[in-house]
Order: sequence, then structure tokens, then C-alpha cells
Amino acid sequence: MKDEGLVRRHSGDFHWEDVDVLAYKQEGSAPFKDVTRQVLFEGTGGVPAQLRYFEVAPGGHTTLERHEHVHAVMVIRGHGQCLVGDKAWDIAMHDLVRVPPMTWHQFRAASDDVLGFLCMVPSERDRPQLPAEGEIAAISRPLQK
Amino acid sequence: MKDEGLVRRHSGDFHWEDVDVLAYKQEGSAPFKDVTRQVLFEGTGGVPAQLRYFEVAPGGHTTLERHEHVHAVMVIRGHGQCLVGDKAWDIAMHDLVRVPPMTWHQFRAASDDVLGFLCMVPSERDRPQLPAEGEIAAISRPLQK
Repeated sequence: MKDEGLVRRHSGDFHWEDVDVLAYKQEGSAPFKDVTRQVLFEGTGGVPAQLRYFEVAPGGHTTLERHEHVHAVMVIRGHGQCLVGDKAWDIAMHDLVRVPPMTWHQFRAASDDVLGFLCMVPSERDRPQLPAEGEIAAISRPLQK
Repeated sequence: MKDEGLVRRHSGDFHWEDVDVLAYKQEGSAPFKDVTRQVLFEGTGGVPAQLRYFEVAPGGHTTLERHEHVHAVMVIRGHGQCLVGDKAWDIAMHDLVRVPPMTWHQFRAASDDVLGFLCMVPSERDRPQLPAEGEIAAISRPLQK
């Protein structure tokens, strides 16, 4: 990210002045599909948390993962589904999602719509854990219903 | 706030399931006009920050104040103006505002529209300072232009 100005304008298309559109993760580091990441507030200089905007393209999904740190999420574009623990929910504009510590989670866009959401995390946080290959089907089963 | 569920739905009118609409501040504690406050994420259980939603009615404004802690703001409804330090900006949907430490700031709704914004703050934070009566006109002058 470039220098954080006091006011940074929204371009009208979920891009912001002086905010770079980043790869969600390093390619090949974990399974995901069609996700971008933008860091809106770095979580430096007095705020111990980061605010990021993730956008999942139609049919795409974030990595199925878990970690000690908590996610506080608000949908601000489109709709889709989320898995949190052993349950899945349909989520849409301005819905709130809390992902507790060490809880499997995944965000999926609808097949015909993007899913864009804000995600607040602690600036200092542990790295995500991935499920073993053989666990994936069982963990993500609620999303299939 | 009531118990934080994993998914809390937006009602379609900037109210959320299990989120109370609160007074912005205790009446008489500081000057403000027509502002409500909703705590979307409490900042407990692993996230060292709170996420709040403030809504300023048309013609209303938050308190002119400053403090050590930083505000990270995103407009999610309507439009208005903000003062940060010695400058004022017109702000609208999805614009980002960063309020640095000890910087005078105020948010004002347009005369004919609400101004609703998310505000991320550290869970542990200092209390706001108010300007002396004689300082207010000079500090808020950029908003008059």
C-alpha cells in the first residue's frame, strides 16, 4: 500500500485512491479461486487491527482454513455463502459474520454474483492452518446443501 | 449489545439482528446533534479493536473532539463532510477517512441526507478531549467553506 492519506476516495467500483489491488495469497500457497485483497487500513500508528476488503468473483471462494485470530466481517457487495464451523449461511449486503478462534471457515461467491466483504483482523496474528486433504470434504459439506 | 451470533443479518435499513441502537454519547456530556451508535463487533475474544456504525441524521454532526487513539472510517450510507485537522472534505459512499492521534475531527451529515459510517477503534482507548469554548469557531472554520 502507498502512503495512507487522511481521506481516500472510493472510485465507484470498489477500488480506492492509493489502495493497491493485491493477490489474495501467494499463488500455490493454499487452495482458493478468484479472490482479490485490498488493505484499506494498515493497522499501524495506533490501531492494533487491519481492515481489508476481499472480493470473490462469481463462482470463486477463499481458502478453507482456521487460525487462532478472529475475523469480524461485513458484506458490502453482492452475495454468496459462508461456512463457519459446522454450518453454512447465505450472506448478502451488510450481513455480519464473526469467525471465532480455531474455527474452519470459507467464503464463497454466488455463481452469478461477486461477494465483497470487509474483514477486520488483529495486526499481529497467527498463520492459517489448512485441513488435511482427507478432511476437506467433511468440513465443507454444509456448503453443499 | 446482546450475545454476538456467528452470522447477524442486516435488516435492510442499517439495523442488524442482535445489535442495539444506542445513544451516541450520554446526553449533555459533549455537544453533538442527531447521532446514533451501533456496536457491530465488540472487540473482545481475540480482536483488539471495535467496529461501530454511526449514523448522523440530515443536518446533524458528531462531537468536535480529539484523542490519542486513531479512527479508521468508511462511509457506508449517504453523504456529508468531515473535518480532520485543519481541512474539511466532502465524503460519500465508501470513502475512507483516517483520523491520526490528537487531531481535531468532526463528521457532519448533508442538510438533505444522512451520513452513516463504520468506525474502527482500539478496544482500549483514551477519552476524547473537547476544545475550549473560545477555540471552537477557529477549529471548525474549514467546515464552513
